[in-house]
Amino acid sequence: MNLDLREYSVRTDLAVESKAIAEAEHGGPVPGLHEDIDELDGIKVTRLDVQDEAASQKIGRVKGHYITFEVPGLRSQDTELQEKVSSVFAKEFSGFMKKLGIQSNAKVLIVGLGNWNVTPDSLGPLVVENVMVTRHFFELTPDQVSPGYRDVSAIAPGVLGLTGIESSDVVQGIVDRTKPDLIIAIDALASRSLERVNTTIQVADIGIHPGSGIGNKRRGLTKEILGVPCIAIGVPTVCYASTIVNNVFDMMTAHFNDESGGDQAQSKQIMGLLTDLNEGERLGLVKEVLEPLGHDLIVTPKEIDEFIEDIANIIATGLNRALHEAVDRDNVAAYTH
Amino acid sequence: MNLDLREYSVRTDLAVESKAIAEAEHGGPVPGLHEDIDELDGIKVTRLDVQDEAASQKIGRVKGHYITFEVPGLRSQDTELQEKVSSVFAKEFSGFMKKLGIQSNAKVLIVGLGNWNVTPDSLGPLVVENVMVTRHFFELTPDQVSPGYRDVSAIAPGVLGLTGIESSDVVQGIVDRTKPDLIIAIDALASRSLERVNTTIQVADIGIHPGSGIGNKRRGLTKEILGVPCIAIGVPTVCYASTIVNNVFDMMTAHFNDESGGDQAQSKQIMGLLTDLNEGERLGLVKEVLEPLGHDLIVTPKEIDEFIEDIANIIATGLNRALHEAVDRDNVAAYTH
Amino acid sequence: MNLDLREYSVRTDLAVESKAIAEAEHGGPVPGLHEDIDELDGIKVTRLDVQDEAASQKIGRVKGHYITFEVPGLRSQDTELQEKVSSVFAKEFSGFMKKLGIQSNAKVLIVGLGNWNVTPDSLGPLVVENVMVTRHFFELTPDQVSPGYRDVSAIAPGVLGLTGIESSDVVQGIVDRTKPDLIIAIDALASRSLERVNTTIQVADIGIHPGSGIGNKRRGLTKEILGVPCIAIGVPTVCYASTIVNNVFDMMTAHFNDESGGDQAQSKQIMGLLTDLNEGERLGLVKEVLEPLGHDLIVTPKEIDEFIEDIANIIATGLNRALHEAVDRDNVAAYTH
Amino acid sequence: MNLDLREYSVRTDLAVESKAIAEAEHGGPVPGLHEDIDELDGIKVTRLDVQDEAASQKIGRVKGHYITFEVPGLRSQDTELQEKVSSVFAKEFSGFMKKLGIQSNAKVLIVGLGNWNVTPDSLGPLVVENVMVTRHFFELTPDQVSPGYRDVSAIAPGVLGLTGIESSDVVQGIVDRTKPDLIIAIDALASRSLERVNTTIQVADIGIHPGSGIGNKRRGLTKEILGVPCIAIGVPTVCYASTIVNNVFDMMTAHFNDESGGDQAQSKQIMGLLTDLNEGERLGLVKEVLEPLGHDLIVTPKEIDEFIEDIANIIATGLNRALHEAVDRDNVAAYTH
Repeated sequence: MNLDLREYSVRTDLAVESKAIAEAEHGGPVPGLHEDIDELDGIKVTRLDVQDEAASQKIGRVKGHYITFEVPGLRSQDTELQEKVSSVFAKEFSGFMKKLGIQSNAKVLIVGLGNWNVTPDSLGPLVVENVMVTRHFFELTPDQVSPGYRDVSAIAPGVLGLTGIESSDVVQGIVDRTKPDLIIAIDALASRSLERVNTTIQVADIGIHPGSGIGNKRRGLTKEILGVPCIAIGVPTVCYASTIVNNVFDMMTAHFNDESGGDQAQSKQIMGLLTDLNEGERLGLVKEVLEPLGHDLIVTPKEIDEFIEDIANIIATGLNRALHEAVDRDNVAAYTH
Repeated sequence: MNLDLREYSVRTDLAVESKAIAEAEHGGPVPGLHEDIDELDGIKVTRLDVQDEAASQKIGRVKGHYITFEVPGLRSQDTELQEKVSSVFAKEFSGFMKKLGIQSNAKVLIVGLGNWNVTPDSLGPLVVENVMVTRHFFELTPDQVSPGYRDVSAIAPGVLGLTGIESSDVVQGIVDRTKPDLIIAIDALASRSLERVNTTIQVADIGIHPGSGIGNKRRGLTKEILGVPCIAIGVPTVCYASTIVNNVFDMMTAHFNDESGGDQAQSKQIMGLLTDLNEGERLGLVKEVLEPLGHDLIVTPKEIDEFIEDIANIIATGLNRALHEAVDRDNVAAYTH
Repeated sequence: MNLDLREYSVRTDLAVESKAIAEAEHGGPVPGLHEDIDELDGIKVTRLDVQDEAASQKIGRVKGHYITFEVPGLRSQDTELQEKVSSVFAKEFSGFMKKLGIQSNAKVLIVGLGNWNVTPDSLGPLVVENVMVTRHFFELTPDQVSPGYRDVSAIAPGVLGLTGIESSDVVQGIVDRTKPDLIIAIDALASRSLERVNTTIQVADIGIHPGSGIGNKRRGLTKEILGVPCIAIGVPTVCYASTIVNNVFDMMTAHFNDESGGDQAQSKQIMGLLTDLNEGERLGLVKEVLEPLGHDLIVTPKEIDEFIEDIANIIATGLNRALHEAVDRDNVAAYTH
Repeated sequence: MNLDLREYSVRTDLAVESKAIAEAEHGGPVPGLHEDIDELDGIKVTRLDVQDEAASQKIGRVKGHYITFEVPGLRSQDTELQEKVSSVFAKEFSGFMKKLGIQSNAKVLIVGLGNWNVTPDSLGPLVVENVMVTRHFFELTPDQVSPGYRDVSAIAPGVLGLTGIESSDVVQGIVDRTKPDLIIAIDALASRSLERVNTTIQVADIGIHPGSGIGNKRRGLTKEILGVPCIAIGVPTVCYASTIVNNVFDMMTAHFNDESGGDQAQSKQIMGLLTDLNEGERLGLVKEVLEPLGHDLIVTPKEIDEFIEDIANIIATGLNRALHEAVDRDNVAAYTH
């Protein structure tokens, strides 16, 4: 019998997931990756550097610096925790910009990618709505701008289905006209594990790459393309249906293994040959099956609106703190709406 | 080995799906169901009467009259088709009201259930935004209302997480104060098959029952509760993740059966014991596996915003035509926004 | 010549303005009014008690307790000031509830009056979106609610033109079903002076009276009607066009008086007989002139969206602090979105 | 006495108003203006050509072609009339494009100027939401586009206060990247007369000029700037407060003239020297008086949300008909949401 499966790569936008997959497949640490983990008060901060091309290829992520904030408690809508995450985010983001050599007076364009009409894809536009925008003061009345503020503009370029224009074209057009020194692009991502949905924030200096995020980007937002460095901020707000089906297979296998006391034969009897296929093959199988339905299906919790608002607020508040020295870094939630 | 599966009932809000499941399980037509099908121009209209308690129990749906509009072409955003569906809907709905003995001057309260912040759950509120509301004219200047209009009010009561109040309590309070003769409640539903998502409209004289729709209703909107007849209009806009996993199992089994030329032994080798479980058992297994993730997960196409708007527009336009004789039934799209 | 002017009363929803008008007309303090003013850090708090019927009639406001927060700096979008106002508001509001004998476990229904589609009328719905709602936890899992939280529900009942139903009917229906102990109603108001627009918050224990606010309320929300005490929170977000025309007359007269060095004759020559008319007469004249345009015209600054969001945020944050003891009263801005 | 008034020009964005003012001032027809009026079924269509520089200077409008649709009945929310206006608009717009030499396959970028958060300024963004966007189909699958459709993209660039970027910069950036052949820019305008608010649509081939519309544009969208012809579509949705005050003076003077049977002396006694000032002087006086309030005040009817939605729908439907031959020109309202 010939299953003739194409090996699909597992769909994730998170570097920490890519690393875990690579380590599982290669049976140990991947050379060329440097990781540094802090954990405090329920907030796990992982700084992951993909240092060379070899490492990049092994984990399937672009060379660069990644910071991941994992906060399982974000699901419980604990506002004190949200405030803490925003504060930690601001501090890390501030340090990240310094490490990248971004000057304290560098002009920043914040780009909120995604579709404001689809709740799990509205993260970027929501952040844009809530960041402090100052560029027009610098342009019109530069001598009246208080010290400690930076030149910040912000735009939500919409999605192809709404505008007929690639968001990358809108952004590049604006970059050409307004000449920012740094772009910060916020996007909703897909994650491999449901536990990470709405509980994880990833910051990376690699920009936005084609095919990443929920929307079907066909061109990216990178330094190579735009001529300006681009920091990407992403939050997984969905899984793909194919991923979740695949996850269920894994969990079922584990379940049967447990029940059968590790009796692989019995477990195999239940799950059949499927247990012999590797993850990529099974994913291909699932996709083949789902394909006739004709649409890329997304999976979200029903309460997605509350999570999205909370995380957009955390990121907007964190950015306001990190970008403007004058913003009181201990209490700036009031700066966002 | 003891799988100890609870038999979950398959989750669908559509009577036509319940009937198909019941017929598959019972191996033939179910007595006490009367069905009448029209199909024209890509619009399939099924009028299904659940005539007695026995039939009701067999298909797991409340006794009553159901009309289902199935229009696969709605996915292709063909505006002429949309106009046609709205026109067919208006005609059927008008006849449905007559059949139920609703007077042409009966006062109507339209209730848009669901959460306006979550795209696939926003159908009801969107319809409410687009129907013609006239009650205030009847109350304030009754002698100035042109003939051919009916007394119509409309409300979107919100969801428990936003208001802290059951939508049924909000509606009942309003019914007590405004004394309508008929309630029309619009709600987003879950379907068993992805093909029906955003392509199907169900009308039924059974009201809204606890647990139906996307939101977690714990009280219903029925004649028994409200003292007023309630027609429910529903559109499946999501599947549950558990349903979709289950679907994939079915499709895989079919796939392997095809590939193995119907060689059940080989197919069974691949799918293992799972092929021996019935649908309910497998669904229980899947739910058990997904449960730790802690949230009821919904599955939608990414383009959900466009579908929802189109169908809300069809229903609002159809209702405007059906409820007000003065509304030109050949061209009223302009009446909605 | 017979001008035959009806004497229109000057349109204001603010007690402090009514008091000033009455004192100007009666040439001195009005007996039965008790006033107490605090001013700190640019926030002026006026506690005004209308103690008896005589005073009530003289100033044309219902007997009761009024607190007014006047903060001219709110126009400059100073976020630190906003935070301070929210904190002062919370403290005053908390004291106000105690003074009225509201128990610390009294169940509260927050009502956001107004039209969410018209920016200056959207204050109430915006506050409702941002307050913490807890009633469903008390109803569903009362033993799991942490101490320090109160039972709060919230609704934006819409306006007559959108629903066909008086907002007072929607609210009364909900009150009948959910039995709150206190109603807090938020509404956008009209002020007599443009300086007060978007810089003033009024709290009063008198409920909402017919004709107050921007919308055309024909029934009120008062203890007499609802059987439950109702605290009204109002912010003037517009002036009426008639008021502004009238203001311009006043300012012109003052302007000419200044220019002519107080030479009343010259000034009178310029402004004509208009200077002899009293304010009510002139207002009637202006209204007569505007009436053919057929609509009640409102006047707002163009940047109304930013002001409304800021003040809605201040009130929502203040209410969250005042209503829930567990909410950190020093830093709760993060609780709102 | 020295009033020292600056002569403010009367603020209107409508060519028909400019012409009327110029004719009143110059006492008769202005040479170089060609006007052509059709009136049918309550829709008055005025085609006004400003043919040379002399005429342009006299009426204070750029040389070019203007079409004005005046429909007083639009205030009564008559949906049949709306449908008729949309149809007339489509036909005129189609002819206008031909007259300008725009090819039937010319690529069009629709630009919705204004602030979506301020109801009377949200016209442009609302139209953009409702037009058919097809450019992505032409880019991605050009051979699958049905005949009769045109390449159309659409964007709402936001306003300076939201993005920190001039909308003209956003548009120019997009024009540079996507190379449209024609720009259609929709903007909310200010009118001199309240009667024209929300009842008038102006189409002109002159683009958008600095200072026009509600927002404070400091750069325009014209062929000179963008290198692409730009048709402007405008609807007056507000008056400025200064204009309305001035109008009231005029109406009062007329009122007193009537009452005094044309006895100028008596009338003058009432209105004082103000009747001697010309309109520009009085406007300056009013502005001087209002200035301390510090904001540009706008005046709108309270029901602005309904008017804006109706007119946005008319324009979007009209554009869909005019731009795409395949769109059924007799019934396309369903194409808009």
